[in-house]
Amino acid sequence: MTPAARPVYLDCDTGIDDALAIAYLLASPEVRLVGVGTVSGNTSAAQAARNSLALLELAGHTEVPVAVGAHDPLAGGFDGGVPHIHGRNGIGDVELPEPTTRPVAGTAAELLLRLAHEHAGRLEVVTVGPLTNLALALDAEPGLPALVRSVTTMGGAALVPGNVSAVAEANIANDPEAALCVVGTRWDLTLVPLDVTLEHTLEESDRAALLQSQSPLAQALGRMLDLYFDFYLPFYGRRASALHDPLAAAIAVGGVHATRAPAVPITVDAGHGPGRGQTVVDLRGQRLATVDHEGVRTRVVLETDAPLAPHLIERITGAAAATG
Amino acid sequence: MTPAARPVYLDCDTGIDDALAIAYLLASPEVRLVGVGTVSGNTSAAQAARNSLALLELAGHTEVPVAVGAHDPLAGGFDGGVPHIHGRNGIGDVELPEPTTRPVAGTAAELLLRLAHEHAGRLEVVTVGPLTNLALALDAEPGLPALVRSVTTMGGAALVPGNVSAVAEANIANDPEAALCVVGTRWDLTLVPLDVTLEHTLEESDRAALLQSQSPLAQALGRMLDLYFDFYLPFYGRRASALHDPLAAAIAVGGVHATRAPAVPITVDAGHGPGRGQTVVDLRGQRLATVDHEGVRTRVVLETDAPLAPHLIERITGAAAATG
Repeated sequence: MTPAARPVYLDCDTGIDDALAIAYLLASPEVRLVGVGTVSGNTSAAQAARNSLALLELAGHTEVPVAVGAHDPLAGGFDGGVPHIHGRNGIGDVELPEPTTRPVAGTAAELLLRLAHEHAGRLEVVTVGPLTNLALALDAEPGLPALVRSVTTMGGAALVPGNVSAVAEANIANDPEAALCVVGTRWDLTLVPLDVTLEHTLEESDRAALLQSQSPLAQALGRMLDLYFDFYLPFYGRRASALHDPLAAAIAVGGVHATRAPAVPITVDAGHGPGRGQTVVDLRGQRLATVDHEGVRTRVVLETDAPLAPHLIERITGAAAATG
Repeated sequence: MTPAARPVYLDCDTGIDDALAIAYLLASPEVRLVGVGTVSGNTSAAQAARNSLALLELAGHTEVPVAVGAHDPLAGGFDGGVPHIHGRNGIGDVELPEPTTRPVAGTAAELLLRLAHEHAGRLEVVTVGPLTNLALALDAEPGLPALVRSVTTMGGAALVPGNVSAVAEANIANDPEAALCVVGTRWDLTLVPLDVTLEHTLEESDRAALLQSQSPLAQALGRMLDLYFDFYLPFYGRRASALHDPLAAAIAVGGVHATRAPAVPITVDAGHGPGRGQTVVDLRGQRLATVDHEGVRTRVVLETDAPLAPHLIERITGAAAATG
């Protein structure tokens, strides 16, 4: 972490892979995590905040403010999360020490707005949960896009099946109205969809490296992954896990590079038919070469340059050990 | 053609690749084309009937009844077709001799119903246009599915971009309400989507073989393809054409086999959002192996065993030469 490190705000629904993303961001010298906002998704916004505070404290980073964000999506109510994937407490039923810190006053949207003004033109936003807080912040401050340098969003599915419906991915499907607002905003947004996140995995050897690390945070992550690996067994045919949220974080940081990420129109189906929650990404005309649409500021990541796992494990075990 | 040949009804919007499908079906001894119904799509239903009659006459098959089907989709009106793809007359602006035969009395839906009763339990339906006529026939005779052996439909896009919107293919998008009805009917339906039809092409060498054939029909097809090849130049990076409609015909006949065609839920987005006209195909859980959903009778073709072009050219030039 250096004074020149780029300020990053993370919006998350912590979540096992969110926890990996937090650990990765803390361990990345290119950036400084200046705030965390939570939202209901994998677990409730309140539980996600508790988890985030506990993880930050385990890493010795109690200086990072955490704000509790939206409990409910813009339309409808929180569905209760996915305890069969992320555990009853959102972090694989691993018990972390009760955090000594508390969430800051105000909502996640308010924290985001404060940080955007504080780091005007420099703040990089990474989202790994539903986009409710961003939509609320945009509604409260239409000038937000001018204050934010970039948005990197884990979410959606372009040319692969969804994970909560035939065509919808969970983060987008959990608040399609918010996602429609966020992708329809004119700012530099990079969508990191299932097309790529499912192709990056942690394996048992990676989990062992986490467990054997000197870092309490890395050890906790290794324990959390036990449940997550179970969930993915039928998908991959082996105990492993996808790297949804940490891939978005790594692409935002620059630890992994998108080698194919065309600038193309993206919208979200916020209707109530079979496509609800789908990211509708216009990839026509990309067969012969990757073609950026002129004036379009939404990109979708379709290929990356290197496997994330070795880089992720190196950072989380190495850097965390230094602070643990 | 033998007495035991399987009876096939073709529903089409002729159309250059529809013309290839007609020629292929006429040249296939496994089946007997017992009727053709037309619908607006590539061109108007009336023009498609004229084209079909002219093609049948060129092949010496004036015995095949042709019925003019729906001019308009179930909702809204016909959009006027795609003269930049299929020419002003639907067949690449090639002038064929005026047919001496006329369409039969009654609609395409009525012809389909008559043939379904005549060949009860044996009739195989192949559709290569919008599904309006099938929806009208189902509405008129809810017992139709019991009379029909199978339906093979060129249409939709599962895991590739659409061709008229980011997610919608033309045949489905031209009448989503009809498509929703047809895929929601309990009968054995095989969807042949862009995922596979775009991977089968005719090349200049194939077009030359058609032009050099002794068959007037094959020659006419070779001339029609000139315009169609122009349209696909930006897509393939060379003059060539996709084989949408003939691939559905070949899969129905058995000339090309589907090597991956899981039985999965399929529905159609008939709403008015960005997904209108999309075939929503549930391909979750297919990563490790092809899995048929129990009790599901809709299949989507994702892979085929062999290139269609050599087989198609052999049949069209060989068989047509025998009757030309």
